[in-house]
Amino acid sequence: MFKETNLRSIAKGISWRFFATTTTVIIVYIFFGRLDLAIAAGVAEASSKIILYWIHERIWQRLKWGRRMIEPFNIWFTGLPLSGKTTIADGVYEKLKSMGILVERIDSKDVRKLFPDVGFTRDERNRHIKRIAHLVGTLQKNYVSAVCSFVSPYVESRDFVRKMTKNPVIVYVKANIETCMKRDYKGVYEKALKGELKNFTGISDVYEEPIDPDIVIDTEKTTPKEAVELIVKYVKKYYVK
Amino acid sequence: MFKETNLRSIAKGISWRFFATTTTVIIVYIFFGRLDLAIAAGVAEASSKIILYWIHERIWQRLKWGRRMIEPFNIWFTGLPLSGKTTIADGVYEKLKSMGILVERIDSKDVRKLFPDVGFTRDERNRHIKRIAHLVGTLQKNYVSAVCSFVSPYVESRDFVRKMTKNPVIVYVKANIETCMKRDYKGVYEKALKGELKNFTGISDVYEEPIDPDIVIDTEKTTPKEAVELIVKYVKKYYVK
Repeated sequence: MFKETNLRSIAKGISWRFFATTTTVIIVYIFFGRLDLAIAAGVAEASSKIILYWIHERIWQRLKWGRRMIEPFNIWFTGLPLSGKTTIADGVYEKLKSMGILVERIDSKDVRKLFPDVGFTRDERNRHIKRIAHLVGTLQKNYVSAVCSFVSPYVESRDFVRKMTKNPVIVYVKANIETCMKRDYKGVYEKALKGELKNFTGISDVYEEPIDPDIVIDTEKTTPKEAVELIVKYVKKYYVK
Repeated sequence: MFKETNLRSIAKGISWRFFATTTTVIIVYIFFGRLDLAIAAGVAEASSKIILYWIHERIWQRLKWGRRMIEPFNIWFTGLPLSGKTTIADGVYEKLKSMGILVERIDSKDVRKLFPDVGFTRDERNRHIKRIAHLVGTLQKNYVSAVCSFVSPYVESRDFVRKMTKNPVIVYVKANIETCMKRDYKGVYEKALKGELKNFTGISDVYEEPIDPDIVIDTEKTTPKEAVELIVKYVKKYYVK
């Protein structure tokens, strides 16, 4: 939460004085035709009003009226492992942050690193996504938006996301499994094919395609850069007015 | 996150004009001794400067300099079931909110209601508290403080709280188990004594007293009202300057 410091109020008073006193001197000169007295009046005005301006700023600092909150949103990326969710989500997050929006980035790998025993069964995944949805909802109650990237392969987990978070934007990052396997720099698809990774989405576990995503990114046709632009445009249109 | 609306900038301009133009008229009158011209100069000044003030406000709205964030804190209540954590925590939360602080209230019963399968074994409780500490840490990254009440009976869970959250204030709500049992309006102690509730802190599970709590509330000597005042005073002293 923001508090304006005393120094900010004083600096605003001085910068304002520059414009305001110049205007006063010009007006007084027009009315009275005496530059010396006009400047003297300007000096008297400037010294009294810097203090008055400071008092005025401190009073307004306490008034909440006219301060609008940005409606918090939740951009949720779903898709096969290595479909490109993280890359696009990172790009969207950086862009939104540079626009001055209060936003949190939540990525599957970071959370799983912190909680290594989350698991990959249907139940465990659903519980996990519900926890994340709760986290996002709590952030949003406090005016923080979120950019999340999780495989989130089941219809019911994405339902948690829709129900438990405000202004959800489900982004389906669509990629052929062959393409994802070609990108397999982590070696996870290889391990899954050998049976070393259980419940691996796309190989030994199902990915249920989203029925009504808000945005579909077809990675065969859209570059990550284009995807970021498209999603940011969507957010600007609906949530950052 | 805050945005100042156009209307707020205009209203500030008008309220400022009231003080500023009165001052100008008085100064011009002192210098030139003609009230009619002084008022005319005032009118000319007021009309030009409301617009100038608005422009000035919109420029400052874009500058981040001089906006200070309140250092987010985490008030964490620990203690036996029915020791009075929730009552005191609710009071502290309401008081902090009324002071205009951005703060989230997290209570054990609300979270357990949302996630009924959390469990009560040592491992499950620790995992649970770690999740809550992660939630609080994420809120704090976004300038939101927290008031949390959890039995949190183990040393290691409270260590998660200290490590994963900023400015932790561990409040130990101390009460004799006999007193808690007398207050047993929920009937939980009765059930625990009958063996219907397993791993019940104080009966069938241990409560490890905090070694170095920041605040100890002895409920035999301190009323909830006094406890709230004491804790808010502490927060004011260290975090809300």
